[in-house]
Amino acid sequence: MDLERSPLALPFPDMPDIAGVTLRVARARYKNWDRCDLTYAELAPGTALAGVFTRNICCSTEVEMGREQVARGAARALVVNAGNSNAFTGFRGREAVEQIMGQVADHLGCEAADVLVSSTGVIGVPLPKDKARAGVEAALSAEACSWEDAAATIGTTDTFSKGATVSAMIGDVRVTLNGIIKGSGMIAPDMATMLGYIFTDAAVEPAFLQDCLSAANQGSFNCITVDSDTSTSDTVLAFATGKAGNAPLTSPDDPGGDAFMAAMQDICRQLAHLVVRDGEGAQKFISVSVTGATSDDSARRIGLSIANSPLVKTAIAGGDANWGRVVMAVGKAGEPADRDKLSIAFGGVWAARDGLPLPDYDEAPVAKHLEGREVDITVDIGLGDGRATVWTCDLTHGYIAINADYRS
Amino acid sequence: MDLERSPLALPFPDMPDIAGVTLRVARARYKNWDRCDLTYAELAPGTALAGVFTRNICCSTEVEMGREQVARGAARALVVNAGNSNAFTGFRGREAVEQIMGQVADHLGCEAADVLVSSTGVIGVPLPKDKARAGVEAALSAEACSWEDAAATIGTTDTFSKGATVSAMIGDVRVTLNGIIKGSGMIAPDMATMLGYIFTDAAVEPAFLQDCLSAANQGSFNCITVDSDTSTSDTVLAFATGKAGNAPLTSPDDPGGDAFMAAMQDICRQLAHLVVRDGEGAQKFISVSVTGATSDDSARRIGLSIANSPLVKTAIAGGDANWGRVVMAVGKAGEPADRDKLSIAFGGVWAARDGLPLPDYDEAPVAKHLEGREVDITVDIGLGDGRATVWTCDLTHGYIAINADYRS
Repeated sequence: MDLERSPLALPFPDMPDIAGVTLRVARARYKNWDRCDLTYAELAPGTALAGVFTRNICCSTEVEMGREQVARGAARALVVNAGNSNAFTGFRGREAVEQIMGQVADHLGCEAADVLVSSTGVIGVPLPKDKARAGVEAALSAEACSWEDAAATIGTTDTFSKGATVSAMIGDVRVTLNGIIKGSGMIAPDMATMLGYIFTDAAVEPAFLQDCLSAANQGSFNCITVDSDTSTSDTVLAFATGKAGNAPLTSPDDPGGDAFMAAMQDICRQLAHLVVRDGEGAQKFISVSVTGATSDDSARRIGLSIANSPLVKTAIAGGDANWGRVVMAVGKAGEPADRDKLSIAFGGVWAARDGLPLPDYDEAPVAKHLEGREVDITVDIGLGDGRATVWTCDLTHGYIAINADYRS
Repeated sequence: MDLERSPLALPFPDMPDIAGVTLRVARARYKNWDRCDLTYAELAPGTALAGVFTRNICCSTEVEMGREQVARGAARALVVNAGNSNAFTGFRGREAVEQIMGQVADHLGCEAADVLVSSTGVIGVPLPKDKARAGVEAALSAEACSWEDAAATIGTTDTFSKGATVSAMIGDVRVTLNGIIKGSGMIAPDMATMLGYIFTDAAVEPAFLQDCLSAANQGSFNCITVDSDTSTSDTVLAFATGKAGNAPLTSPDDPGGDAFMAAMQDICRQLAHLVVRDGEGAQKFISVSVTGATSDDSARRIGLSIANSPLVKTAIAGGDANWGRVVMAVGKAGEPADRDKLSIAFGGVWAARDGLPLPDYDEAPVAKHLEGREVDITVDIGLGDGRATVWTCDLTHGYIAINADYRS
């Protein structure tokens, strides 16, 4: 199936080199296709590692092993397989991952545990070891490639390549963070996974790198949804090569520590938004801001209840300012709310205040807002100071076409 | 929008009279349509009442008042308004309900609290009091109508009228239970609500009637889902007129007590299935059976996670035995599960056992099964004795067409 490029796509940015990171791609031909589908990133000795992973209990071998590797905090290489998620494949899947780790470790003269592996694609088919071996061998001898090439190679049914770059000052040293990402939640057909990778030349201790990534994750990847289905392979990894020459960061109190945390939040949010912009069938990018909840976490749950509601998402797809469905989604969230204190706005225009439709509500500017590509929904719960913003896309015929009409 | 009759529709059954119940319908014209939209059921003095309601926090006035009335346990009449849910309408909505209760109470010479009111349709528009008054007046003087007429009149975007009848022996007295129901979860466009009503001539004390309904509800209405969106008005009421002449039932230990409980479960399950069969855009009726969970409740939650997954529902719509998506949905349910003990079958054919795809798995009989109107998914968690079955429908272009293409 040829997917049309998302109308919400953004152009791939100019991304500078990151000292200590070399990218290469190759054809492992995990599927019957003629495209690069194996990405290899070589990392300088001493590179610090952090990661966040899916909470899906039925996660892949790659996720299980990745958790252990992140606990060690060091990495020398990353291999990403596209076309086969290797999830639900038992010991045979694990053997394939261990083979890749060993093969790269032999090449680099490092420990196998320093080699991270991710896989994305069909569930339930063990990653073929022969294809993996040949693919890794080809990648190890390939020429270095661009960030855009790597971003394209980790993709499966993505309709555009996704990358972002930001920089921050640590003392008088400018450091760069580059990120690439693929997918949009549990993406189909038969594909699973959002995979994201952030590379920086900053020197950062692994524990603080993990703190930065975990904090940024909470307000970015954990605040997006396309279809409420949580992949078995979701992974975001951060690699810090330390080549920029700054004094190593160990806490937010270090000079530049807060700037680095802010840069990490910035790049994570940019990458998360790119995933929503490539949500299956997406025609509109929807921001749901919740204020007045009893806590920030409660606000986030209410926001996700709205963003996951098929009836809200289809209403937006139809350009319908159906705030009754927003009320419904608030009410089913399982969080504190009071119907008679609820206020709802579209594009900054209040449709209901304190539990009642506004008598002078003018739907014309709202209808105009809903015709655009970017839709804002604001909900004030009226109970406290908790706030959160989550992002999603609309639910369209495109989603059904991709997931039901097409047989994998 | 003219909706096509669901391909999963069942013919309306022959339903006998229930002594002590008289049905009438009238045109209140809550919307710009020419059809009966107000249903009135008159109940003999002494009728016992039980009810279960939505857990949506933003529920309607009718639901709030209904909860209080059920606590009293007695009813003399039921009024159902179709075309306006009267939800999110504040004090003006409440005034309309109180007007209807008073008007009927004056007519019957009973207390206002004996008159139950339900409303279903657009959210956020106060029920117009003038139309309600004229509609009730017309209904009070109308000729008695059939069960099928009443079932048709409570419907909104339903594509077929839904009713069921069962009987049970209490001692040597045969009692009858008739039920009618409308909707399919949070149904659209702009409509909310599943409303269900069960009438019996059995003599049953209110507390035991409530026990029977609550127990039956757990394995029927609470085990169906169309789109995971919980209405603000969901209501199921049970009325027992006591006219059959049996010795009043007060507990399951009374002669016939267990038979009555079983009959209540039977009719609730039949009615719940009818709602799924009229799910928006439904082309297939899907049963998800979960065994081997750590508890029955855990099994139900896992079943609903599968039944609510857009990716599972679109896979079934496409005739794709995509058990990887079932694995994903088990893993995201937040319930105990072990990937390596998981087994999955379609139509009784195991596709995966103990966390691995079966090497001799034959997809041909499964593909054949998925071509039919009724699809069975079985998941064994492999951890305990907990079991549950939930029911849903597939997710098709029809759902998008009904909810996005149509403007209310």
